[in-house]
Amino acid sequence: MGKGRLEAFSDGVLAVAITIMVLELKVPHDPSVAALLMLWPVFLSYVLSFIYIGIYWNNHHHMLHATHHVSGGVLWANLHLLFWLSLIPFTTGWMGENHFAALPTALYGGVLLMAAIAYWLLQQSIVKANGAKSVLASAIGSDWKGKLSPLAYLAAIPSAFVSPWISCALYVVVALIWLVPDRRIERRLVNEG
Amino acid sequence: MGKGRLEAFSDGVLAVAITIMVLELKVPHDPSVAALLMLWPVFLSYVLSFIYIGIYWNNHHHMLHATHHVSGGVLWANLHLLFWLSLIPFTTGWMGENHFAALPTALYGGVLLMAAIAYWLLQQSIVKANGAKSVLASAIGSDWKGKLSPLAYLAAIPSAFVSPWISCALYVVVALIWLVPDRRIERRLVNEG
Amino acid sequence: MGKGRLEAFSDGVLAVAITIMVLELKVPHDPSVAALLMLWPVFLSYVLSFIYIGIYWNNHHHMLHATHHVSGGVLWANLHLLFWLSLIPFTTGWMGENHFAALPTALYGGVLLMAAIAYWLLQQSIVKANGAKSVLASAIGSDWKGKLSPLAYLAAIPSAFVSPWISCALYVVVALIWLVPDRRIERRLVNEG
Amino acid sequence: MGKGRLEAFSDGVLAVAITIMVLELKVPHDPSVAALLMLWPVFLSYVLSFIYIGIYWNNHHHMLHATHHVSGGVLWANLHLLFWLSLIPFTTGWMGENHFAALPTALYGGVLLMAAIAYWLLQQSIVKANGAKSVLASAIGSDWKGKLSPLAYLAAIPSAFVSPWISCALYVVVALIWLVPDRRIERRLVNEG
Repeated sequence: MGKGRLEAFSDGVLAVAITIMVLELKVPHDPSVAALLMLWPVFLSYVLSFIYIGIYWNNHHHMLHATHHVSGGVLWANLHLLFWLSLIPFTTGWMGENHFAALPTALYGGVLLMAAIAYWLLQQSIVKANGAKSVLASAIGSDWKGKLSPLAYLAAIPSAFVSPWISCALYVVVALIWLVPDRRIERRLVNEG
Repeated sequence: MGKGRLEAFSDGVLAVAITIMVLELKVPHDPSVAALLMLWPVFLSYVLSFIYIGIYWNNHHHMLHATHHVSGGVLWANLHLLFWLSLIPFTTGWMGENHFAALPTALYGGVLLMAAIAYWLLQQSIVKANGAKSVLASAIGSDWKGKLSPLAYLAAIPSAFVSPWISCALYVVVALIWLVPDRRIERRLVNEG
Repeated sequence: MGKGRLEAFSDGVLAVAITIMVLELKVPHDPSVAALLMLWPVFLSYVLSFIYIGIYWNNHHHMLHATHHVSGGVLWANLHLLFWLSLIPFTTGWMGENHFAALPTALYGGVLLMAAIAYWLLQQSIVKANGAKSVLASAIGSDWKGKLSPLAYLAAIPSAFVSPWISCALYVVVALIWLVPDRRIERRLVNEG
Repeated sequence: MGKGRLEAFSDGVLAVAITIMVLELKVPHDPSVAALLMLWPVFLSYVLSFIYIGIYWNNHHHMLHATHHVSGGVLWANLHLLFWLSLIPFTTGWMGENHFAALPTALYGGVLLMAAIAYWLLQQSIVKANGAKSVLASAIGSDWKGKLSPLAYLAAIPSAFVSPWISCALYVVVALIWLVPDRRIERRLVNEG
């Protein structure tokens, strides 16, 4: 089974999700600096989520690039990942609209945690469909980023009730770690190609 | 005529439909647990519809994969299916917003019924365009899932006026039956490939 | 220059346009038959516009299928067509929301007229880029549908101020004429292919 | 690494951005000429932004067409460009809704400026990934349009506080300059191909 439509559908969902988030930046009826400044928290949460969906698209791109076989299980694991990512516009809007209050900031981390787990499950199902000796399996290696991220989200969720800024700092740090694309797979592909 | 654009357009419509549904999860202006809990019915209906559109995408993917020829009739049968699927965000929002009241829950089943009929018509038009001895025709076989689903929806529509939970139980059961991807076509393709 | 991205971008815009129209079907806060019946005019205009965008996608698909060369002029003629089609969700909502009042029904025809002109300009620019002896040029032939449609829209615009139902009847008749896919191009392609 | 998904994802984001802008054209509840005329400024800003996103899609199409290698840096430079373009529906709505008031008109230019810088960074990263002797590098040449545009936006931002019409005139002039597709790359490709 080909991977073309899996990529096309995922691209579609991620493109819609990343773009409709801007609808939460409600257009003010007032052309003042004050009206613009009131949007500041929503804008900040928009930037953060744009980067996160960008990271997921980027890693998804690399992972699928190293994939040869796609099974029925992979299709469902992919839809499961898209489900959690599709909730990011909601948690982004709720966190921004309420100026990074404790509960929305915790829920934002909760959805990121579920997306991280879903990504890991997708990776496992692709490795299973392509064999333990596949390019992807050897390229993943120790996967310290993939192990660290859910731990950071797990820490960020209760931290939000102490201070949401601790949680936000954690979300930013994880994003920065991932902003470097997955050179392991890139290097492997060059070596094997 | 190629099937590439038919798949691309269908992927686009399904990706938009599955993602804009999240806009019905209206962002609360209040960062409280109570505000979040009020969204519970809308969230549940969102999960159900995400799975249903996922199932349609998945089966559409398998069916088109086994398709070689696309006629003008197939293009229109496909648009007819997309029409009913495009109404799912509306019925989902209405059912969730009104906490699974009788009429919205019945209408939800009505649209699922029309989508199931449209899917069957699409399948027929593809078989007609590809010949009764095509991979798809022999892969469909008895098609018990495709026959059972509309019957379940037909039962769910009047049941909603007795208790909407009977209808919801039927929608969940049909979704679970389809969550298993169509192994008949997969197996056939492997044998013939 | 390849036509792949032109098709992909057009599919994307048409898929978004056809799907976001459903957002004009505002979810009622009331689970009653009365609430549903109030949506009837919006639903009818939705069905009409869904068919129109479907027709444009279908004809675009056929026309690009018979196209080999894409010039800069073709890219802009295509964007011009997409501009008018992108206004259909607005005119659809306005016509439905105001129960087919005279002015919105006339504007609906005005946008259809502009889209028909834009389609004709795109056809001309493709013929110019591919040569007067190309498959497309010979396949277009007399193009009576393409000539009749703008005349029907031109008649429908003033008619709306007599009775909007005359205009709507004209829109439905034109849609029915186009629902038959462009067999001229299909036949030509089969003969030449 | 292939460029196919980069193009597909960019097409998706641009198609959604260009189409959801029409949602800022709020459907009036009144079928009168007065209601329609009140939308005039929003419509004008919609037309301007549709052309700008069309120009970006067009140039992106040409640039990627002349690209052979895509690195991790190119993926991020592309996402950075998409980020600024995704804000255009917001600045368009704010400028139109407030009848081209000074601050929204200046911010509109600010986002265009950031998009122009992001486009230049993307061009640089593609040239770096493809080598100084690549088709793209030699095709860019003096790039006077790419150098003039940010200067015009820089002039338009303070001008908005003198008169927003100076800024709008500058935005229209820049758009007209770019409406001519990048013939340098087209010519080069023909010569080399």
